[in-house]
Amino acid sequence: MQRPRWGNPETPGSLPAIAAAALTQLGVRPRAAVAPEDVSLPDSVLPAAAKAAIVGVVGADNVVADRHARVQHTRGYSTPDLLKLRAGDASDAPDAVVYPGDHAEVADVLRVAAEHDVAVVPFAGGTSVVGGLAAARDGFAGVIALDVRRLDQLVAVDEVSRTATLQAGVRGIQAEELLRAKGFTLGQFPQSYEGASIGGYAAARSAGQSSAGYGRFDEMVVGLVLATPTGTIELGTAPRSAAGPDLRQLVLGSEGTLGVITSVTVKIHPAPAHRVFEGWRFESFDAGATALRRLVQDGPLPTVLRLSDEAETAVNLADPSGKLGGSPGGCLVIAGYEGELDEAEARRAAAARSLTVAGGTALGTTPGEAWREGRFRGPYLRDPLLDAGGLVETLETATFWSNVPALKAAVTTALTEALAGQGTPPVVLCHISHVYPTGASLYFTVICAQADDPLAQWAKAKESANAAIRATGATITHHHGIGTDHRATYHEEIGPLAVAALRAVKQTWDPKGILNPGVLV
Amino acid sequence: MQRPRWGNPETPGSLPAIAAAALTQLGVRPRAAVAPEDVSLPDSVLPAAAKAAIVGVVGADNVVADRHARVQHTRGYSTPDLLKLRAGDASDAPDAVVYPGDHAEVADVLRVAAEHDVAVVPFAGGTSVVGGLAAARDGFAGVIALDVRRLDQLVAVDEVSRTATLQAGVRGIQAEELLRAKGFTLGQFPQSYEGASIGGYAAARSAGQSSAGYGRFDEMVVGLVLATPTGTIELGTAPRSAAGPDLRQLVLGSEGTLGVITSVTVKIHPAPAHRVFEGWRFESFDAGATALRRLVQDGPLPTVLRLSDEAETAVNLADPSGKLGGSPGGCLVIAGYEGELDEAEARRAAAARSLTVAGGTALGTTPGEAWREGRFRGPYLRDPLLDAGGLVETLETATFWSNVPALKAAVTTALTEALAGQGTPPVVLCHISHVYPTGASLYFTVICAQADDPLAQWAKAKESANAAIRATGATITHHHGIGTDHRATYHEEIGPLAVAALRAVKQTWDPKGILNPGVLV
Repeated sequence: MQRPRWGNPETPGSLPAIAAAALTQLGVRPRAAVAPEDVSLPDSVLPAAAKAAIVGVVGADNVVADRHARVQHTRGYSTPDLLKLRAGDASDAPDAVVYPGDHAEVADVLRVAAEHDVAVVPFAGGTSVVGGLAAARDGFAGVIALDVRRLDQLVAVDEVSRTATLQAGVRGIQAEELLRAKGFTLGQFPQSYEGASIGGYAAARSAGQSSAGYGRFDEMVVGLVLATPTGTIELGTAPRSAAGPDLRQLVLGSEGTLGVITSVTVKIHPAPAHRVFEGWRFESFDAGATALRRLVQDGPLPTVLRLSDEAETAVNLADPSGKLGGSPGGCLVIAGYEGELDEAEARRAAAARSLTVAGGTALGTTPGEAWREGRFRGPYLRDPLLDAGGLVETLETATFWSNVPALKAAVTTALTEALAGQGTPPVVLCHISHVYPTGASLYFTVICAQADDPLAQWAKAKESANAAIRATGATITHHHGIGTDHRATYHEEIGPLAVAALRAVKQTWDPKGILNPGVLV
Repeated sequence: MQRPRWGNPETPGSLPAIAAAALTQLGVRPRAAVAPEDVSLPDSVLPAAAKAAIVGVVGADNVVADRHARVQHTRGYSTPDLLKLRAGDASDAPDAVVYPGDHAEVADVLRVAAEHDVAVVPFAGGTSVVGGLAAARDGFAGVIALDVRRLDQLVAVDEVSRTATLQAGVRGIQAEELLRAKGFTLGQFPQSYEGASIGGYAAARSAGQSSAGYGRFDEMVVGLVLATPTGTIELGTAPRSAAGPDLRQLVLGSEGTLGVITSVTVKIHPAPAHRVFEGWRFESFDAGATALRRLVQDGPLPTVLRLSDEAETAVNLADPSGKLGGSPGGCLVIAGYEGELDEAEARRAAAARSLTVAGGTALGTTPGEAWREGRFRGPYLRDPLLDAGGLVETLETATFWSNVPALKAAVTTALTEALAGQGTPPVVLCHISHVYPTGASLYFTVICAQADDPLAQWAKAKESANAAIRATGATITHHHGIGTDHRATYHEEIGPLAVAALRAVKQTWDPKGILNPGVLV
């Protein structure tokens, strides 16, 4: 069985006419995925004694080794992941999928897995786009996916402190529904919202589209519980503390290599009574970036704030004339405001003054609401684009404001040259979607024709982009994470002594190294 | 030679008449400190080969072993520290004080100290109040204080990204002067402002009185450079990143046990054009705390926000009638606003509406400005109080909002019972000085008569308070740090696996364990 395509199957993705036309212009020919029955799945090699021990913890119903479950838990959703599965390659499938029911069962599974030298891939929403779910099985008796979906409870809400405790397997969309029923919002809306889960948000330092207003996920977490093969760690006795290093920030971003996060306590906010999203036009990306910088440095800050560059603005416009606010060219800013009516409208008015002074032209709510309506649809286009013979992938980074222009130019050039040099000149789109007083993220989308070997084709482009990011002094990832894909560059970024420290922590909590081997460290 | 008293010697501290009267009421008799020449200083035991190696790095002028320098670097400024030195006990003095001139010299000193089994106490401002500067010398050939005061440069200012790179030895007060000259402020104003240095802020996770507006110091840091005995670590490639755990947060709060922070890159802000501080009266601590919580959860947030409880409000009032805004009793809130004129005044007006709705009575700017004028004077009273035979100490903690009343009651009871049980009933004062959306700090001041053995007297009270904090689930410290005084309770707070992880990191970067032995881990 092939894994289903991204998202809600009731609203499948299809290419808009403009995109299909653009692909034809690029000289692209369709590529079909192999039939589900032709996907090549290795035999399950989990030793009987190991399986029996795990069954002893979670029960036979919760250890599943059928073809369906194993393919469902094969890798994540990067373009290389999609390409491999489309080519029939399920060689990274786990031997079995294990569904513990609570924290104690997670801890016990880790303990017996270590006893039996079985590697464990912690699995929440399964939406990694950086190879975070492809364990290196060398040296292990087998590999299991530890799927936390049964840990699906909103455990507690503290309305006074405005915190909620959520189990790791609660999907993002479900967390929001559970909190809305009590009058609150989490405010975490990554593009993976329809697939990702709380545990993955925490393990991979997710950041959602409303990060300007509600913060990154690592900023939302005030407490967490971690199961490791050697025991349980509970962190978070206060919002902030001077009691040594902030070890919450050591677990966040550890990507399942140090333990399995089984629950987190997060900040929550009253569900907004009012919401308005609007568009602004800037003459250039630099002008728009300066306007965003002014808002985040001097206020007031919208809840959502993003800037598309000229290329992304042109591609995103439904109008093929490419006119934004009646003028050709230009860059689209989306500014969204959520909150109490008076507060949100006051913020909107003050931000509008700032954007106007910075040279922006107000476009009204139509582009803002259009963006909001479509904001989770991007991933739906990936398989249709691959079907059509296109290659599409995204990557992202972050830097300080003064370095934004150099970073954008370096990555754009690196991607363009690496793909054009292979005979597949790309379109490279870029936006800023997360802003901080000292800097911002840059998010790139690359579209070109598939070459004969699209995996090798993209690998060259990715390597070139990674080198450009490193050379510019930026971080290799702002919110996608490290996984296996960014590991080498990550180690260059933090240096050998920092890598050694992470390995020392891993050795302490996971002495047999069973947790997500090959990822991060 | 005795160490000088706290702060600027041109503005020495003396007890106000009201305090002297209160002490007389408590039945206190004066206690003199031993004469400087009678302070007992152990012989310097630094082996000649070790000293020669260190001199080889920094030069003979920068290795000082005279009585003056050694006493100056003996412990910090906790009440037990003051009591010990007042009693003539300088047994924790380092064998020598070393003054490296740059990062490379710091790294080389650490390397040669490790080669010679010499323990190193990193020393910035020397203002620890938790025993952070009293190394356990057992097993070492000697102990040096590594004083970073020669690393006193503002290295760079990035006006676009609004960051500044400051060396570790820049004093807080000097950092502010250097930045003001360029039109910026750091916004870090702890009570130790006149003594503490940038490196100490970072190593101990300092939080200043303007944390509502400018954040804690650990929130200001976007990059840092750490010298360890095994090499240098540079962290901070972007404001925020998903590249693994945030290792900056592993170094911040490490209190000199993992390495010596030689420089940090921090957020800066335009120097405020406008500033106004005002007072508000609330009927009770709970009512005031609810008002503060509303401001931090729903906005707008003042730059400075603090609430004194009934006891602290009464003690702080110069008017012995104890009337606040014409009414007896009540609790004083200080709300300060800094920024551009229009923005700060708009924020002040909106906050005033919120405080009024919450039951507050505006007291105007007189109490606010009085607090601002005197805000660094508290520590000046410590030696005069000890001279007069009083015992005065502070301790602090933090918790989530719903737990604030229980924590306040538990700590107050613990301190009161522990000291009353020794025949010295105390006055226990409390304030909230740092607020977060999910919780707040609680800062306690304890004043009573000195018993015959004030060290043992306070140790009992402190132990009782620590137990109360632990039992209530709060953190053992919000901004003072761990040092040696909080180590045992800290280990209970984070648990054995977390302690083991920190030890594993220390073993990696400092395999001989020379860095601040006995502190933190």
